[in-house]
Amino acid sequence: MTLHPDRLFPADERTRAIARELHRQTADLPLLSPHGHVDPRLIAENLPFPDPARLFVVPDHYLTRMLYSQGVTPGELGVASVRGEPSEIDGRTIWGRFAEHYRLFRGTPSKLWLDHTFAEVFGIYKELGPDTADEFYDHLSARLAEPAYRPRALFERFNIEVLATTESPVDSLEPHAALAAQTAADGRAWGGRGGKVVTTFRPDNLVEPGWPGWHDRVEALAELTGEDTATFDGFLTALRSRRRDFIAAGATCTDHGNLTAYTEDDPKAAAEIYARALAGEADEAEILRFPGLMLVEFARMSVEDGLVMQLHPGSNRNHNEWLHAGWGRDVGGDIPNATEYTRALKPLLDAFGNHPRFRIVLYTLDETVFSRELAPLAGGYASVFLGAPWWFLDSPEGMRRFREAVHETAGFYNTAGFVDDTRAFCSIPARHDLARRIDAAYLARLVAEHRMTDAEAADVAVDLAYNLPRKIYGLEK
Amino acid sequence: MTLHPDRLFPADERTRAIARELHRQTADLPLLSPHGHVDPRLIAENLPFPDPARLFVVPDHYLTRMLYSQGVTPGELGVASVRGEPSEIDGRTIWGRFAEHYRLFRGTPSKLWLDHTFAEVFGIYKELGPDTADEFYDHLSARLAEPAYRPRALFERFNIEVLATTESPVDSLEPHAALAAQTAADGRAWGGRGGKVVTTFRPDNLVEPGWPGWHDRVEALAELTGEDTATFDGFLTALRSRRRDFIAAGATCTDHGNLTAYTEDDPKAAAEIYARALAGEADEAEILRFPGLMLVEFARMSVEDGLVMQLHPGSNRNHNEWLHAGWGRDVGGDIPNATEYTRALKPLLDAFGNHPRFRIVLYTLDETVFSRELAPLAGGYASVFLGAPWWFLDSPEGMRRFREAVHETAGFYNTAGFVDDTRAFCSIPARHDLARRIDAAYLARLVAEHRMTDAEAADVAVDLAYNLPRKIYGLEK
Amino acid sequence: MTLHPDRLFPADERTRAIARELHRQTADLPLLSPHGHVDPRLIAENLPFPDPARLFVVPDHYLTRMLYSQGVTPGELGVASVRGEPSEIDGRTIWGRFAEHYRLFRGTPSKLWLDHTFAEVFGIYKELGPDTADEFYDHLSARLAEPAYRPRALFERFNIEVLATTESPVDSLEPHAALAAQTAADGRAWGGRGGKVVTTFRPDNLVEPGWPGWHDRVEALAELTGEDTATFDGFLTALRSRRRDFIAAGATCTDHGNLTAYTEDDPKAAAEIYARALAGEADEAEILRFPGLMLVEFARMSVEDGLVMQLHPGSNRNHNEWLHAGWGRDVGGDIPNATEYTRALKPLLDAFGNHPRFRIVLYTLDETVFSRELAPLAGGYASVFLGAPWWFLDSPEGMRRFREAVHETAGFYNTAGFVDDTRAFCSIPARHDLARRIDAAYLARLVAEHRMTDAEAADVAVDLAYNLPRKIYGLEK
Repeated sequence: MTLHPDRLFPADERTRAIARELHRQTADLPLLSPHGHVDPRLIAENLPFPDPARLFVVPDHYLTRMLYSQGVTPGELGVASVRGEPSEIDGRTIWGRFAEHYRLFRGTPSKLWLDHTFAEVFGIYKELGPDTADEFYDHLSARLAEPAYRPRALFERFNIEVLATTESPVDSLEPHAALAAQTAADGRAWGGRGGKVVTTFRPDNLVEPGWPGWHDRVEALAELTGEDTATFDGFLTALRSRRRDFIAAGATCTDHGNLTAYTEDDPKAAAEIYARALAGEADEAEILRFPGLMLVEFARMSVEDGLVMQLHPGSNRNHNEWLHAGWGRDVGGDIPNATEYTRALKPLLDAFGNHPRFRIVLYTLDETVFSRELAPLAGGYASVFLGAPWWFLDSPEGMRRFREAVHETAGFYNTAGFVDDTRAFCSIPARHDLARRIDAAYLARLVAEHRMTDAEAADVAVDLAYNLPRKIYGLEK
Repeated sequence: MTLHPDRLFPADERTRAIARELHRQTADLPLLSPHGHVDPRLIAENLPFPDPARLFVVPDHYLTRMLYSQGVTPGELGVASVRGEPSEIDGRTIWGRFAEHYRLFRGTPSKLWLDHTFAEVFGIYKELGPDTADEFYDHLSARLAEPAYRPRALFERFNIEVLATTESPVDSLEPHAALAAQTAADGRAWGGRGGKVVTTFRPDNLVEPGWPGWHDRVEALAELTGEDTATFDGFLTALRSRRRDFIAAGATCTDHGNLTAYTEDDPKAAAEIYARALAGEADEAEILRFPGLMLVEFARMSVEDGLVMQLHPGSNRNHNEWLHAGWGRDVGGDIPNATEYTRALKPLLDAFGNHPRFRIVLYTLDETVFSRELAPLAGGYASVFLGAPWWFLDSPEGMRRFREAVHETAGFYNTAGFVDDTRAFCSIPARHDLARRIDAAYLARLVAEHRMTDAEAADVAVDLAYNLPRKIYGLEK
Repeated sequence: MTLHPDRLFPADERTRAIARELHRQTADLPLLSPHGHVDPRLIAENLPFPDPARLFVVPDHYLTRMLYSQGVTPGELGVASVRGEPSEIDGRTIWGRFAEHYRLFRGTPSKLWLDHTFAEVFGIYKELGPDTADEFYDHLSARLAEPAYRPRALFERFNIEVLATTESPVDSLEPHAALAAQTAADGRAWGGRGGKVVTTFRPDNLVEPGWPGWHDRVEALAELTGEDTATFDGFLTALRSRRRDFIAAGATCTDHGNLTAYTEDDPKAAAEIYARALAGEADEAEILRFPGLMLVEFARMSVEDGLVMQLHPGSNRNHNEWLHAGWGRDVGGDIPNATEYTRALKPLLDAFGNHPRFRIVLYTLDETVFSRELAPLAGGYASVFLGAPWWFLDSPEGMRRFREAVHETAGFYNTAGFVDDTRAFCSIPARHDLARRIDAAYLARLVAEHRMTDAEAADVAVDLAYNLPRKIYGLEK
């Protein structure tokens, strides 16, 4: 498997030549990763990665779900059962099963990312398959044992300028504290404000009273902050206090994975539901309403402390009940559904959508809103920006459709730039390269069709790859 | 009208050359037609086809609806009025009217199919129009009188391996019995298990209590099976009995054209509604709920007997009341509406979505669910596969959008391959050729953009055209 | 900034050559503008245009909303505050602010239209930006002072055959009366039946009882017509009377901007709600229901008087409350939402969808209905035609998606052709040229892929650009 230098560029030679030149101007720009799920311990501890199966396959639900969709169980792929049932523990066996089914990924982004990673990061220029599985396993294992493949060495080699992780308000932030105490070779601190690794404030598990363990987390929040979370005011004060801690740990953003984009500006109702939820008396409608009330509270806090909001609604979590019951959350069992933004966000936008100190980045799994709702909202409110195509849409065709549907109404400058959204650290360069190539391809088409000049396109390409995410996610200073 | 050998391939020469080569590898593969509406009497009786107008125009609502949309009434096209009003009976006059309006179909799949059929099946290489209408009529009439244009001769010439028809549980299956008793030149039986023509179990008119004649059909089901359909248990037993008969007549699949994808796993509620419906006491909500309850009952039966389920929701039947009142069902008056799958299918998938003996193929008329719901479901459940773009989406652009929206999340191997879904027997080769060309075009783009290798694409092309439908619709043995 | 002769054509040379030839055949056809918002006083009075900022920037919410989305307030752009707060009055300063932010429009239709207008209408072949702002302002100002840049001179130069404006039933139609009294150099009257400038009957502000000033307008309608609008019958009679006046002022169409496509055929209910609304007693549900009841009343009138209906649902007006409160209606604060047609239109179509004297043109801001609802409706009802992609979809990509999604089901002949829908008179040629180029590009792809012949495509191109709008909007006689 060699990586073709023109991969992902349009076939038409005229357009391809333009895309090639545009990509050349962004290919070596530093990587900004303002939204992701890498474990901060990885960089804080800088231990070697585990074996290839545990690095690449076991934790990546993009991969395990595809194999599962063809009958390979999570247990056969080494995913730990929540019921304590046995699951495969031999890395080489798991890897072999994966290699045997690698054909399922033909033409998918997962394969594009992996092939890029195998080649560019690990120097393997073959095609993974049953015949080469062991050779890959041995080669990867050998590399992973070398100092040059420790997380920090890769971080530097990948040219990552900032990597944001995601933590709950009840997370101790200890890995971030450790990172803040350490200085990299370039003189920048590994963590803390302006550091290379920063956190993101993600309060989902504190605003969904129906999520198992909610009462414990509300208690933990009280302990961490010394505030009395038995009242709604105390709860808000405690959250504000944690936001200050997160900002100290480098956070520039919050992130919100609500089921819907529903918002409501009614602190009194929020306080009442909070009290009823604490007492175990909230009904289902109240439990669904509370996160929407809290979104407006968080927007209020953002106006105060400057954290940029990110909203990712529309994922029906744990839809596959058999997977959920057997292997827990985040194993690929979520399914999107239609998501409405225009009416749902109006209360939040009425309150803060025109406020010069407020900024919200919207994502979606429902591409029908690209042209109908998101582009008009981003092109009509000073505070609204559009996040990169997310999850199932983080793909060549998904990104292309996003640009085609959004750009003509919202322009390029109301879009926030690429985020890799990944927990697969080694895939970060592959993901950014793919995004930069697809943007180059789209811009090249506009140039080839005389809808933009070369100079404009070059300017926009650099803005999309670097300047816009830097500015919109607050990474400038 | 000559058929250009590069038709439907991308204009870019690099991509076109790849598409041409990919198509070459699938062009001569046998045709599998696991989902269609050809009348089994056609093959069982092997009589000559009627005149060109009655063969091509009168029964094809794709054609009559387009002419109707420009003011030509069904009666002028020979469609029989349900009120006994006169309709055109002269074939040549009908054909002339059709030819006069053939320009309405410019660039549409209907025209691509017809032009292919005129040329490849009937050897006419001209453009149909007012000037050539009579010439076409004479030429086609002459051909249709020849033995080589009898249905079975065409069946062999078309290289059809299996053709599935669609019958209601109260259908006698007599034509299939006749077919099962006859052997083709290649030694295979014309009908029965493993035969060339098989049936499909489609129980829609038994699960919609509001469909006129429902009580009579429930009665007929009792007579056909000797079961007592006065109870819900007897109704289910009778359906199971008919499924065995359908399996004997070659069926490998069921088909379900519910209004929505709503499902509910509650046999007790199903029994209650059934009783109320029998008594004529079911209200509208119950009548709408019953098909969703029955879907889960049918899934239960599929786990037992291995029939593959197919679900086609989302068509608002007989929307054009004037057409419906005047010319009956299935004359082109149906209009789709938005269709939700994620929540609607959860009860069925909770029950059987991870069962190794269960398989369901999902279709849609609402392409907004391609990337948002269908691809994630097919890529997240072992039992779910995606059917070909259906009806209004069975077109070059519809197929392209399907691949672009689905493939990156579900891969190619969770899609079930092409089905022609047609009652127009002579158009079957044209439809399969079109689908194979569009898949070749899509794969060629992936190759040209270095997202797949040539070898992978060739492998996938053959899988999509032959191996996948053979396996997923249970035609392997 | 030079306008490339191949702009908006596909990059592939084979396809581009076909597109170039197709466009050549439509480029010089007269412009039909059957749906727009130019002020008729402009042509009636034929005064010089104001300064460049007031001509191009201040009234164009496509431009002001984009600048606002990046923090430039409407007041800074000279939009008048409804609260009497100061707003910028210096044209050159406004123009400078616009030029400074012109990069926001890179690749958007707004920039394509403006660059075309600067070059082709005003002879400026530079790129607008901070460095050239003054040069543009001086050049444009000088041109605007010349007689050749008066509205009527441009009207002739633009080769406009018919321009429709939009008026409320309570509009005096005085400018149209003035136009009807004047004859152009080509001997045609400037206004009146068959004139160059005609009106369109748009009753929105009379059918939304919740719209401020409704009672006054109902009163004004009584005064204008001498009918007693205190009863629903009188209201309908008055509207019929005004329709006759509009027809005398050249109207061939009505236009309806309802929030949804909801229709209901129940004159009795309409009368009751009307009475309650007059008495100030209508509740919110009734206020939302009334426009849908009135749509069927207007359809009934159209069957009588032949006016073609146009329906534009789905815009959530004045979504940005801060903009609305500060700068009023129509300043770019509207946001679309999902819009259902299949069920909503059934009552209207049951009543008139198959009537030979009824015609309705449907538009949408929700492109998900292109293939799912609109194309099947247009391809299934004799009375239904599809309007051009509207507003946020009036763009190269939006038009392309419209053709791709609609054409295969509805054909070309159930689409009504381009409408510019603009109040920016000077941009009319640019908008039509863009639409003709995109249609040429789409047709060229069909030809290059051997889905149509050259001759068919040339025929269709001319039909789309001229013959279809002429016929469908009733401009033939």
